[in-house]
Amino acid sequence: MKDNVPYKIYLTEDEMPKAWYNIKADMKEQHDPFLHPGTGKPCVREDMLPIFCGELVDQELNDTDRFIPIPEDIRSFYRMYRPSPVVRAYCLEQKLGTPAKIYYKFEGSNTSGSHKLNSAAAQCYYAKKQGLKGVSTETGAGQWGTALAMACAYFGMELKVYMVKISAEQKPARRAVMETYGASVTPSPSDTTDAGRKILAAHPGTGGSLGCAISEAIEFAVKNEGYRYVLGSVLDHVVLHQSVIGLEAKTALDKYGVYPDVIIGCAGGGSNLGGLMSAYMADKLTGKADPQFIAVEPASCPSLTRGRYAYDFGDTAGVTPFMRMYTIGSGYIPAPNHAGGLRYHGMSPILTKLYHDGYISARAVGQSKVFEAATLFARCEGTLPAPESSHAIHAAIEEAMKCKQTGETKTILFGLSGTGYFDMTAYQQYNSGSMTDYIPTDAELEENFKTLPKIPGVQ
Amino acid sequence: MKDNVPYKIYLTEDEMPKAWYNIKADMKEQHDPFLHPGTGKPCVREDMLPIFCGELVDQELNDTDRFIPIPEDIRSFYRMYRPSPVVRAYCLEQKLGTPAKIYYKFEGSNTSGSHKLNSAAAQCYYAKKQGLKGVSTETGAGQWGTALAMACAYFGMELKVYMVKISAEQKPARRAVMETYGASVTPSPSDTTDAGRKILAAHPGTGGSLGCAISEAIEFAVKNEGYRYVLGSVLDHVVLHQSVIGLEAKTALDKYGVYPDVIIGCAGGGSNLGGLMSAYMADKLTGKADPQFIAVEPASCPSLTRGRYAYDFGDTAGVTPFMRMYTIGSGYIPAPNHAGGLRYHGMSPILTKLYHDGYISARAVGQSKVFEAATLFARCEGTLPAPESSHAIHAAIEEAMKCKQTGETKTILFGLSGTGYFDMTAYQQYNSGSMTDYIPTDAELEENFKTLPKIPGVQ
Repeated sequence: MKDNVPYKIYLTEDEMPKAWYNIKADMKEQHDPFLHPGTGKPCVREDMLPIFCGELVDQELNDTDRFIPIPEDIRSFYRMYRPSPVVRAYCLEQKLGTPAKIYYKFEGSNTSGSHKLNSAAAQCYYAKKQGLKGVSTETGAGQWGTALAMACAYFGMELKVYMVKISAEQKPARRAVMETYGASVTPSPSDTTDAGRKILAAHPGTGGSLGCAISEAIEFAVKNEGYRYVLGSVLDHVVLHQSVIGLEAKTALDKYGVYPDVIIGCAGGGSNLGGLMSAYMADKLTGKADPQFIAVEPASCPSLTRGRYAYDFGDTAGVTPFMRMYTIGSGYIPAPNHAGGLRYHGMSPILTKLYHDGYISARAVGQSKVFEAATLFARCEGTLPAPESSHAIHAAIEEAMKCKQTGETKTILFGLSGTGYFDMTAYQQYNSGSMTDYIPTDAELEENFKTLPKIPGVQ
Repeated sequence: MKDNVPYKIYLTEDEMPKAWYNIKADMKEQHDPFLHPGTGKPCVREDMLPIFCGELVDQELNDTDRFIPIPEDIRSFYRMYRPSPVVRAYCLEQKLGTPAKIYYKFEGSNTSGSHKLNSAAAQCYYAKKQGLKGVSTETGAGQWGTALAMACAYFGMELKVYMVKISAEQKPARRAVMETYGASVTPSPSDTTDAGRKILAAHPGTGGSLGCAISEAIEFAVKNEGYRYVLGSVLDHVVLHQSVIGLEAKTALDKYGVYPDVIIGCAGGGSNLGGLMSAYMADKLTGKADPQFIAVEPASCPSLTRGRYAYDFGDTAGVTPFMRMYTIGSGYIPAPNHAGGLRYHGMSPILTKLYHDGYISARAVGQSKVFEAATLFARCEGTLPAPESSHAIHAAIEEAMKCKQTGETKTILFGLSGTGYFDMTAYQQYNSGSMTDYIPTDAELEENFKTLPKIPGVQ
């Protein structure tokens, strides 16, 4: 222990948050409303009930209550793997020779391997409470599907997972984990849904995308009695559930009088950074402090740094409401050599709004540099990071190296959202020197922006 | 929280053990000495120095000091992933409807996925201190190799791993993890050593065994300047390092006034149970308490339950000293359908002696039942257990179900020595119903006992 801060700061189970923080209650302006895909009018509760559980819709639309109590059954589930530690990266600091102090909130100490379990437990609980038989969802890299499979096993719910086909092929182990927990897994696009068949006809041989898988999972939920659809990122209620990450991080760091200058999270759909920032963004929005927030996204899927601020579909087949997001277009399918997760075409409406209003900055990183940072981190700090989380590691190292040049002793907090145990094919590519980067050209992005929907009177 | 015991009992970093417990200092009788393979005479320090690091040899031969201080550099390493929690299995208890109280010490919260890191850190540290360039070792399922790769990356040492060939084929991801940490990995048997070439000539197409891999790793160490060999189980100094498991477990449970009636660990070479039992076996040996100890081994590799109490080689090629162990013969190669780890033909001399003298009982379990217990545990408790650890889970459930019948409220502590993230091929076999059990016949074992060495004047 140096600086009086231990390597790992653990809270007691009593210190775990008893309520989620609803960031929208503190936002000066709300993000633009969801629009009904048929009418182009703002969505109301009733529009969403055929797809989502009732209480989750209520949370989605709640922009007034700052805190929403966490039901005791969910807290019991959380106690199996939470509170998660804040770790001081002493070894990494030493390796870099930086005067910066680096902390990371580690969300990978559970079998799903990531923070996704925080929302999976909540969504599954509300589905059970509503008397449903099961839920359906999509998964890309597999963390969300695994998390949901664990939650469904615990709460006694059925689970149908549409897994992006290329991920199912590259990660048979992830599929096996979900099946061990009792889930039914179908590679997407599949011929089990209209959406899947349509996509297969248009793009024969496609490896799929999160957008495709979402379309199939929603169709499954709508067509099967007693099912609803659940989503692992993007939506406001997911960001709400993930607030436990930031609430815990702040409680832990407060104990040692530590306040981060910079808070860094990887961003795909936005649930990880949305959760990590929670308590600190509350301070920023209410004028109590002014930390800097950095969203790090893959250069191959650059919604914040190169996307449009526009209404778009959440999926490929166009069955979700229109959401105003930073987006590169719902038709976007990342290159097959893209290994680092974070494949979603758009960004959470909450993060979109905060980014648009200047509360968050963003940067994009190519995957070779991401794996370089991941390997350095693993060798110093022990834990093998998820490729997704390694985007944040890369930015944290960049910031720490800036401090080395300037002599500043900044405090950096980043989210180690998960572990990379199921990503060894990608690590192997990196180890063998066969990993390549893909960065879309402006022309490719322009072409894709043409898939943005035309909404009369809106855009 | 029920019973006033939280789900997870964490110690602070200050409460981590400052010394390892040397069980031999409390044993009424010592295990029989190692014998030199050439002379049949007891091994002395000098015999072992060409193979092992000096300080590890000293620890191996130390049967007088009850406690051996843990160097601060090792404690720093331990702080990256220790102390590890003792978890109350509330959900499993509820699922079983047992009045028993079930606790497990969870050693899988690190990237190596098991307790092996405790000894890897120590052995690597002493090799570094001795000024060596690198170490060589064998690995089966891969936990030990991964643990050592992590430790070598941290301490800046080279690492040569001979990985049991069938494991290398079944678990390419494990190999990739080791390589990510900078290790050089060779499937065994290989043509890079005399021992490997000899085994390949005698058994063309063999999938290898731990015994073969040990022979190759020792040969590599002896023939390469600046290298020594390190072993992840069996030896006394490994049991010494693993004592942190039991020391932490007792400190944690003492806080809540909990004393286990039954302590259960899986046993392959013996390092896991040897570590878990430490502080409690101290109580038993010194007459302070009388807990029951159960070693659980695979029915396909039953050294304690069906082996001979005899001097044997530690490896296949016969380059190690003779050790008196419960053994099924160093020529034994488990059936290829054996998925559950714990493949070693013999048992740690310390555990052998304690078992022989009646301090420990043993049982063997077939792998289908092991995976049944593993799946039940995963669905209740969240964590996906290693097949090895699931042997202990099976026995813990058996004991808890006995309590259900008798109404006894026993306290059970078992070792969840690792996670099963890299064992999904085996889980997949179990999920699909294609897993089969293999139990050697008496005749097969008899045949194998013929490989036990003849030692003039001894056996």
